[in-house]
Amino acid sequence: MKKFQKKLIPIRNLANGDQQNIEVLTLKGQEGGPKVHIQASVHGAEIQGNAVIYELLKILKERDFKGEFVLIPCANPIGINTKSGTTTQGRFNPVTGDNWNRNYVDLSGLSLEETNFDVQKFVDDMIKKNINHDLIKDHFKTFIKNAYDFYWGNFLKRKGPSDNKFLNITLQKLATQADIVLDLHTGPKATRYLYAGEFEKSSAKHFLTPFSLIIPNKFAGAMDEATFMPWLTLEKEFQKRGQSHSFGFESYTLELGSEETINEQEAKKDAARIVNYLNFKDLSLSDPPAPENPTQHYCLLKDYKTIYSPKAGLVEFLKSPGEGFQKGDVLASFLNLRGIDSLEKIKKAKTSLVAEEDGFVITHSTTSVIHEGMELFQVLTNPKPY
Amino acid sequence: MKKFQKKLIPIRNLANGDQQNIEVLTLKGQEGGPKVHIQASVHGAEIQGNAVIYELLKILKERDFKGEFVLIPCANPIGINTKSGTTTQGRFNPVTGDNWNRNYVDLSGLSLEETNFDVQKFVDDMIKKNINHDLIKDHFKTFIKNAYDFYWGNFLKRKGPSDNKFLNITLQKLATQADIVLDLHTGPKATRYLYAGEFEKSSAKHFLTPFSLIIPNKFAGAMDEATFMPWLTLEKEFQKRGQSHSFGFESYTLELGSEETINEQEAKKDAARIVNYLNFKDLSLSDPPAPENPTQHYCLLKDYKTIYSPKAGLVEFLKSPGEGFQKGDVLASFLNLRGIDSLEKIKKAKTSLVAEEDGFVITHSTTSVIHEGMELFQVLTNPKPY
Amino acid sequence: MKKFQKKLIPIRNLANGDQQNIEVLTLKGQEGGPKVHIQASVHGAEIQGNAVIYELLKILKERDFKGEFVLIPCANPIGINTKSGTTTQGRFNPVTGDNWNRNYVDLSGLSLEETNFDVQKFVDDMIKKNINHDLIKDHFKTFIKNAYDFYWGNFLKRKGPSDNKFLNITLQKLATQADIVLDLHTGPKATRYLYAGEFEKSSAKHFLTPFSLIIPNKFAGAMDEATFMPWLTLEKEFQKRGQSHSFGFESYTLELGSEETINEQEAKKDAARIVNYLNFKDLSLSDPPAPENPTQHYCLLKDYKTIYSPKAGLVEFLKSPGEGFQKGDVLASFLNLRGIDSLEKIKKAKTSLVAEEDGFVITHSTTSVIHEGMELFQVLTNPKPY
Amino acid sequence: MKKFQKKLIPIRNLANGDQQNIEVLTLKGQEGGPKVHIQASVHGAEIQGNAVIYELLKILKERDFKGEFVLIPCANPIGINTKSGTTTQGRFNPVTGDNWNRNYVDLSGLSLEETNFDVQKFVDDMIKKNINHDLIKDHFKTFIKNAYDFYWGNFLKRKGPSDNKFLNITLQKLATQADIVLDLHTGPKATRYLYAGEFEKSSAKHFLTPFSLIIPNKFAGAMDEATFMPWLTLEKEFQKRGQSHSFGFESYTLELGSEETINEQEAKKDAARIVNYLNFKDLSLSDPPAPENPTQHYCLLKDYKTIYSPKAGLVEFLKSPGEGFQKGDVLASFLNLRGIDSLEKIKKAKTSLVAEEDGFVITHSTTSVIHEGMELFQVLTNPKPY
Repeated sequence: MKKFQKKLIPIRNLANGDQQNIEVLTLKGQEGGPKVHIQASVHGAEIQGNAVIYELLKILKERDFKGEFVLIPCANPIGINTKSGTTTQGRFNPVTGDNWNRNYVDLSGLSLEETNFDVQKFVDDMIKKNINHDLIKDHFKTFIKNAYDFYWGNFLKRKGPSDNKFLNITLQKLATQADIVLDLHTGPKATRYLYAGEFEKSSAKHFLTPFSLIIPNKFAGAMDEATFMPWLTLEKEFQKRGQSHSFGFESYTLELGSEETINEQEAKKDAARIVNYLNFKDLSLSDPPAPENPTQHYCLLKDYKTIYSPKAGLVEFLKSPGEGFQKGDVLASFLNLRGIDSLEKIKKAKTSLVAEEDGFVITHSTTSVIHEGMELFQVLTNPKPY
Repeated sequence: MKKFQKKLIPIRNLANGDQQNIEVLTLKGQEGGPKVHIQASVHGAEIQGNAVIYELLKILKERDFKGEFVLIPCANPIGINTKSGTTTQGRFNPVTGDNWNRNYVDLSGLSLEETNFDVQKFVDDMIKKNINHDLIKDHFKTFIKNAYDFYWGNFLKRKGPSDNKFLNITLQKLATQADIVLDLHTGPKATRYLYAGEFEKSSAKHFLTPFSLIIPNKFAGAMDEATFMPWLTLEKEFQKRGQSHSFGFESYTLELGSEETINEQEAKKDAARIVNYLNFKDLSLSDPPAPENPTQHYCLLKDYKTIYSPKAGLVEFLKSPGEGFQKGDVLASFLNLRGIDSLEKIKKAKTSLVAEEDGFVITHSTTSVIHEGMELFQVLTNPKPY
Repeated sequence: MKKFQKKLIPIRNLANGDQQNIEVLTLKGQEGGPKVHIQASVHGAEIQGNAVIYELLKILKERDFKGEFVLIPCANPIGINTKSGTTTQGRFNPVTGDNWNRNYVDLSGLSLEETNFDVQKFVDDMIKKNINHDLIKDHFKTFIKNAYDFYWGNFLKRKGPSDNKFLNITLQKLATQADIVLDLHTGPKATRYLYAGEFEKSSAKHFLTPFSLIIPNKFAGAMDEATFMPWLTLEKEFQKRGQSHSFGFESYTLELGSEETINEQEAKKDAARIVNYLNFKDLSLSDPPAPENPTQHYCLLKDYKTIYSPKAGLVEFLKSPGEGFQKGDVLASFLNLRGIDSLEKIKKAKTSLVAEEDGFVITHSTTSVIHEGMELFQVLTNPKPY
Repeated sequence: MKKFQKKLIPIRNLANGDQQNIEVLTLKGQEGGPKVHIQASVHGAEIQGNAVIYELLKILKERDFKGEFVLIPCANPIGINTKSGTTTQGRFNPVTGDNWNRNYVDLSGLSLEETNFDVQKFVDDMIKKNINHDLIKDHFKTFIKNAYDFYWGNFLKRKGPSDNKFLNITLQKLATQADIVLDLHTGPKATRYLYAGEFEKSSAKHFLTPFSLIIPNKFAGAMDEATFMPWLTLEKEFQKRGQSHSFGFESYTLELGSEETINEQEAKKDAARIVNYLNFKDLSLSDPPAPENPTQHYCLLKDYKTIYSPKAGLVEFLKSPGEGFQKGDVLASFLNLRGIDSLEKIKKAKTSLVAEEDGFVITHSTTSVIHEGMELFQVLTNPKPY
């Protein structure tokens, strides 16, 4: 029998007495197996992940599977509920400007005073007590959880409950029991792509995503990194002592198209791709939905480039997210009528932006009102077949 | 020989010394004829009109035509330059909240002390002096201009140069010599449609726009109304004295698709439709581009309805702008996982919004993150073939 | 025995499932008497009224009084919970730009189809049935309530629950049983002042407020007007039929200093002034706190002037809210270093703004970063001793 | 003869064709001497520094002095011109959320590929060529300038002119010839304080500022750090080679009270304090204005603490910026009426926040509308007499 539970977690009390919350759904399969943590909409406008969680729930309801899911739709009540005009201004905290996906904590990068996260001592202990592989894994999950509690207890005592930090720490704590963490985002106007750590590059293929960005095994503030860093640190400590352990922990940021929109048909496809990966990871979901299998390309993070606009004007994007381009292709046209002083020069009001190398458009700006120096495109260059 | 001129008009000095301006382009045809005022982007995110002005300039450069154009791209430097996130927050003044298209002045609705706009006296004068129809028209244009000057002089003396008012008055003053005023806007996510006064309903057809909203011959704050009201008042005063004069002044708000985007192919079509109307109004443009000729529907303003959302959630819009629907059709689906407490109830997370009458979707929200009571759709109901 | 009750009223469900509410506190005195409706913070940043409600509750707890209070702190959960930077952006709806205090409904100004508010018929009925003065008052409260229900039922059916409208209608419905309505606001940087209708000018003195603005007995969108208009309409209809009824309904907007701040000492003084007025209106509160009794000035609304900035720069305000000034006094200095091109001209970077007539500063801008045309001051001119 | 120059530097072209600029004022004294770079308002709302630049200009105009000033009022045209409501939202880029004072570049912290800033090679060169101390200083200024040019050239080629980066790099490049860099900021609601690097702790006293925060000799994104790091790196490289050079470069962030306001009297005092420091640094300004000489305290950055609010409500700040407090003192009171369900409990609506150690309030929030987890105070603990 599958077991379903929901829990409401208070995130923040508001000045007038109202409350902001997240809802955590837990679903256990018929047998033990991998624990999967999936959260959506940490950036408030990036909502397609919620539609995917809904499709996953419908799939899981009807099938047998091993393991356990923790599902957190609308994981950031502050972000999703902040409007400026009709737009959901959910990328950064409207009070502080802090990007919600650069605020996580890397236990392995802070001082022992702050975290009590002494992985060297942990490994020495495990070796001394001769603990087996599977139990090490369980012990380490508890060890991570305790470290977050220690860190947050300290933080509260020294500073109080920063809303920025509290949301991120809450999500990290919810993920401490997980073997797999999927953080569902979207781009601005974007195709499907994902971020994978170097160490999990070969697994990542099983998401069947057209574009993948391979990031260093390092911390840069995001959820995927914050959750994989402790495990990579653990494995490295064992290696230093001549023991090779691979605990199989993986975490990813999946980018599911464009912000401010949901689409059921696409959500079904997104869910099928995720299930394909999960079955590769021993979830054993019966009768899985058939995923699409697109051509896959990847690049290293250093080859994933932001193109800032070299000029100002009204922009028509001539390449769409997902589309390839070659050096010399026109990516966008700019209209700027200021300074036209004769009818003969009228065509000078329109100029082009040309690609300086080959690549694929991954995202472009949601607006065509472009000031000099704004982000125009994010492009995958130096693409490799996956 | 055609004559082209450009002029930069300062709109506002900023605290740090920088300056905000509008550029006014004037283009005279080979012969005298109607004077046409076209402005774009009074709402900062509504930019397609600028692409249309560019296409019109290219057309006018190559053709003969009668009359004169005053063209104002990016007519609101405050709106188009205000960002919140990547979004252009250009619908209302970010300081005051005032909608830029509800701030115009109706000379015929204010007191004589404020405007010195005594149309009764003007008409008595014209009749006493036995002025002919065409000269009345010229005199009245000067009379309007003087009234704006009087109004604004008073305003400045009493209050100073409110930035809200100054922008709107500047545009109104630029339009005083016009026989035709076109205010180019867009909807949020929208089809092509227009607003026409009752008195110009038969002319409006020549814009060949799929949807038209017929508004009362009354002032509600917008540019089209602000410019046609004085002329309607003038004609009424003549009628009271038993004289029938029709001066042929017309003004419209044209809605050219969705905000935050421009599209050259669509701009060419928009320009062709506008030229079609202008030639109906005796512009005599040679070799006009062939316009598309869609089925046209209209409704009265009272039948143009905003649907406010009866619930909160993440919305998938199932009818697109321009699409028709019938009573009972599903217009949108809502996803809201809060409160799902068993796996059996999972499908209750998704609910529908159903049409309560027949109609066409004209616009829908740019965001799918919908709080209870937000605008979802604007729909044309009780449609009539044009 | 006094009777205290609290009730939570849901205002809006949010996209993620969270809820926004207002809390309504009801407190009945030992005996029957006037019903008093007090609300605070309809503009989200204007919070001093909440401190005043708290002081009133402490006073009422310890004293005997007649009548009944309906107290609504934080009356606008949308406004008070909207941040942009640290600032509470609560003056207008962040989605639509609509000023929360210009959105109320005047039953007596709409069509009968919309409201079913047929005051002529109501008066004819009362006269025909020979209903006495006190009962007429009770019947009319019910009549108002029914009209709001009718209006809102219609609105819902035609459009759905606009969040703008729903908040305002909810507050108006809560006030239908009141004899006295006090809407607690603040200015930006401001002194204490109030808005009173012409008809209640002599009562208003009992608030002992240094400055009063006397507004026409007309509707311009605000809560005070929206609640007094039906009663003024009722009295006028009786007068048309030769009957003079004075029902004593009064409503006011009280402005309690500056926004974004609360102050307990000032709140005690504000509460004492309000009690002074309420006892004048037969509340019979025992042992009332002694109010301060400042010199009072008033002017008509037409003499309450906004000074828009004639130039741009960084402003030092040289007259404080509450301070008087004479024609020729320097009100503010402007610093603008742009364009200084020699050391000799350095003092030209600083210029003055001079008063053009006598008056009192009532408010000034919260910011010194002033663009051309922004509001600088609101001043009371042509002051009259009260 | 003193020499004065002004130059307008374009920062960003806007979508509608308008331009954003900074104005750079240069003033040379009668004789050679230290080069001083002073900039104000990199955070747009923090404007008092502009008033201080104006007072400095008036002082310098009348006096003799050695050396040279580069003065940049309104150094961030994007920040100072961004409004949300009346508030100047100038702390972070409204599009990206990036804090304008965390975006500078540390040449000594990036790779040689990015900067060509090879200080080891530079030092080896100087030693090999036996260059004297003063010439080394001059060569190094050129070396820094070239490195910025190299970095920015690369950045432009790879990505284009990010507006975030361009503003910061432009300011850094303007400061490359300076011996002293002063970055004029303010707090939210704040007293006077400054940030000084450990290495310049003894000099910092000469600013006569009541509170000083001693920061590590490390880069954390700010202008002061970005400009002192290359010099500290240079000195360290010489030390490694057994040579002790002290080039005397210093840079500071001065915090001049509260944001959104300017005050001439305080600006005169601020200018006198700055002149006091500059004369200590051999500017030799004749007849300097007499500064105030307050008691000075300092602490290390780790003892400068942010207090995040442990609860939500409307806050009255009971300690002002600059005020000392002791463990147990009440710092603030909270009003929150939600949940009060009996008249007896009314006083529970008001609660206190108590200090957990001794210290001084340096800043508090500009708003009293406090959600759980927002910044309330920044306090200096573990104060040391300077």
